[in-house]
Parts: sequence; structure tokens; C-alpha cells
Amino acid sequence: MSLGKEAVGRKAADYVEDGMVVGFGTGSTAYFFIDEVGKRIQAGELKHIVGVATSRQTLTQMESLGIESRSLDDVNFIDLLVDGADETTRDFNGIKGGGGALLHEKIVAQNSRRIIWIVTEDKLVDTLGKFPLPVEIVQFGSWKLFRTFDQSGMNPTFRKSGQDTLFITDSGNYIIDLNLDVIQNPHQLAFELSNMVGVVEHGLFLNYPDVILSSDAEGNVQEITRSK
Amino acid sequence: MSLGKEAVGRKAADYVEDGMVVGFGTGSTAYFFIDEVGKRIQAGELKHIVGVATSRQTLTQMESLGIESRSLDDVNFIDLLVDGADETTRDFNGIKGGGGALLHEKIVAQNSRRIIWIVTEDKLVDTLGKFPLPVEIVQFGSWKLFRTFDQSGMNPTFRKSGQDTLFITDSGNYIIDLNLDVIQNPHQLAFELSNMVGVVEHGLFLNYPDVILSSDAEGNVQEITRSK
Repeated sequence: MSLGKEAVGRKAADYVEDGMVVGFGTGSTAYFFIDEVGKRIQAGELKHIVGVATSRQTLTQMESLGIESRSLDDVNFIDLLVDGADETTRDFNGIKGGGGALLHEKIVAQNSRRIIWIVTEDKLVDTLGKFPLPVEIVQFGSWKLFRTFDQSGMNPTFRKSGQDTLFITDSGNYIIDLNLDVIQNPHQLAFELSNMVGVVEHGLFLNYPDVILSSDAEGNVQEITRSK
Repeated sequence: MSLGKEAVGRKAADYVEDGMVVGFGTGSTAYFFIDEVGKRIQAGELKHIVGVATSRQTLTQMESLGIESRSLDDVNFIDLLVDGADETTRDFNGIKGGGGALLHEKIVAQNSRRIIWIVTEDKLVDTLGKFPLPVEIVQFGSWKLFRTFDQSGMNPTFRKSGQDTLFITDSGNYIIDLNLDVIQNPHQLAFELSNMVGVVEHGLFLNYPDVILSSDAEGNVQEITRSK
């Protein structure tokens, strides 16, 4: 699997052109993309790249590679965002947030002209939902929201960062994972979650990527492009 | 005006019954409600009141009066929430958040069986919007969201807590006030705001209160009750 992650991560660096403002995603596949961009900068192939990180973890990796970073508010827009996904359909709907950075990833995505998702082919699905859907929620009253999800049969679990510690996002919120198994109508669910008080953001990214790069276990990369 | 605030705030304490879990709102009108409940507890008229605060400011006042406080997650539900409003129509739609506590106020409201809004009559309006609409937003990428509001003609201003410091809510977010003057379709606007990435919550409280208590400048209190 990591061969596939590495192959697709490094392949995505081919889409980066000199002079671009690049959004850097978070996670184990994005890791290889960031690493490859760093290599190309060090090799002198890319000279003027400015990066916007989607998490503290990604920022740390960028800095270690000497990639110039700016905050989102300090760039006008992002030319190209490359990020992973936990599940995606071939019609460009996905689930993100397994790494806990969904909120910042979605905010960066909102400000990106072109988005590439890099995945291994096991993440290409016909129906979303096998992967637990992350929902970022306000700490205040979070157990009430948990109860609401529970009573709706959505099988919620609080994301933990240790045995007894709840995971806290870069914006200071909790994450509840909804173990849904099958999401019949992602647009309807996204609408309902967005309108719930206490929900900051959810991991349904509907109609986000322009390109999906998918790798098989041998590292062969396939490009799925949106028809214009 | 403060005569009106005091009259309606103290009047609302009549609705509190012994044994209730009470939600305590935030602001200059709620101040008098909290004060009056504290007095009645001290006078022995109310013996078993448990309070849930909607802000740190309210919690401080409750503690100074000896009102027993619990966190929202430690009560099953709230019997009665008494809170102010910055504007309200007679059909129970309002704007809240002038004091910056809209998110916690709305979360508490979601868990309240009965809600009373206490206002002075100048806050009773036919159309919402004269009062700037507060929108609580994530810090990350906040200037991008500001630009979006600005380009949509919504006249945004960042809430400040000092000359050069942005106001930060109890949940660690910023507030943007939208100076709209007139909100023609509050339900449509609420829908749009809820679905914007980076918006945590907005100050439109539509269909929230069961009772509105309104006071004139002489302290005469009128009760507006929802027909069943």
C-alpha cells in the first residue's frame, strides 16, 4: 500500500509549475507529495513555490524541507491544492478527515482554483460510508450532540488522541466519527450536518476535486479528470 | 432604558419554579434576571435551582450570587432558558450575539424545553437587520471569509475587543458583524450562512422563544406568547 501512496504522492508533483501558490494537504499520501516538491525545490527544478499548509503537521514537514510557507490569509488564492482523501467516488465526492484536519483542508480547498486528490485505488468506492465520517464539533455541549447522533442511529464515536484524551483539532474543536457504513444520500446528509448547531464542519467533500490520481499496489497511477 | 431592562429581567424570575434546571443568558438584560434569581435563592423562595451558563461572564455572576452551576453536559436538559435578544419580531425570530455569546447561547437553547426572551420594546421590530448580524467564524482563513462577505455586499466588520485586538469568543473563534440594515428573508440567509465553510454559527435565532417579555421605558411588561 505504501508503494501506491508513494507513487501517487510523488506523481502529483508533476502538476506543480514554477511560480504557483500550492496548497499542501495532510496525511500519509500527501506526505510523499510534500517530500517530492521539497526535492524538486532542492534540485533547482522549482524555484518560486509558495506553500499554504492545511495543518500544523504539514507545516512542520514543509519547513523541514525549506518550502516557503504563507498563511492562507497572506495569499490571494491557491493555484493548486494537492490532498489525500479517505474515500472517493469517481464522480468527485469524498470523505476526508481521517487525519483530523478536515476543517482547514476544506477552508483551503474553498480558496483553491484546482484541486487534485491523491489516493490508492482501495479508496475509490461506489458508495461512501464504509470509512467513518468525521464531524468537527464545538467542545461546549459536545455530549449533547453525541447523544443526538446516537439517537439518530448514526453510531457516533469520539475521536481520541490517547486512551483517555479526546482529540483536539487545530481550531480547538472535537471530532465525532459517524460509523454509517453506507451513505445513501451524501448531499442530504451534508445539508443536515451543516445546519446542526454545534457542528463546525463535516468530512463530506462533495464536488471538490478536479482530478483524482489513483494508484494500484504496484504504483501504476491512473488519472480521473472531470469532463468539462 | 435600563429601567425597562431591569423590570423585564426581574419579571422573568416569576417563571422560575423550584427544582428547575435554568439556562442563564448573557447580556445587560439577562444580568437583572440572574440577579433576581440570586435574590430569591438567598431569600429562601427558591431552594433547588441548578443553573447552566451561556458564557463565562454569566458564570461569574452566577457564582458571585451562590447559584449552583452545572455544565450543559452534566444536566439532562434545561427546563427554562431566559435570555435577551438584540432584535426580535413578534413571530419569534430574532438576532442575538451582540454580547458575543451567540454560539453557546444557541447550543443551550437547542437543549431547552422552554425559552423566554427578555427585551425592551425598542428591540421589537417588524423586520430584522438594523442590528448588525453577528457571525461566529473559524480564525483560520478568516480574512478570506471577510472578503467573501464584502464582495457579496454584506458590509462585514470584524468584532474588536480593543483598538487593535480582534474579539475572541469563548470557543476561540472570531466574530464578523454583517451590517445588512434589512434582512428580507432570514430563513434563506440562515441557510446560506450555515452552509458556508468557516462559519461556526450565526446570530439568526429563528423560531426559538416560546415567550417574549417586552418592557416599555416605564417598566410595564407585556407578554407575547406563541399560540399553540
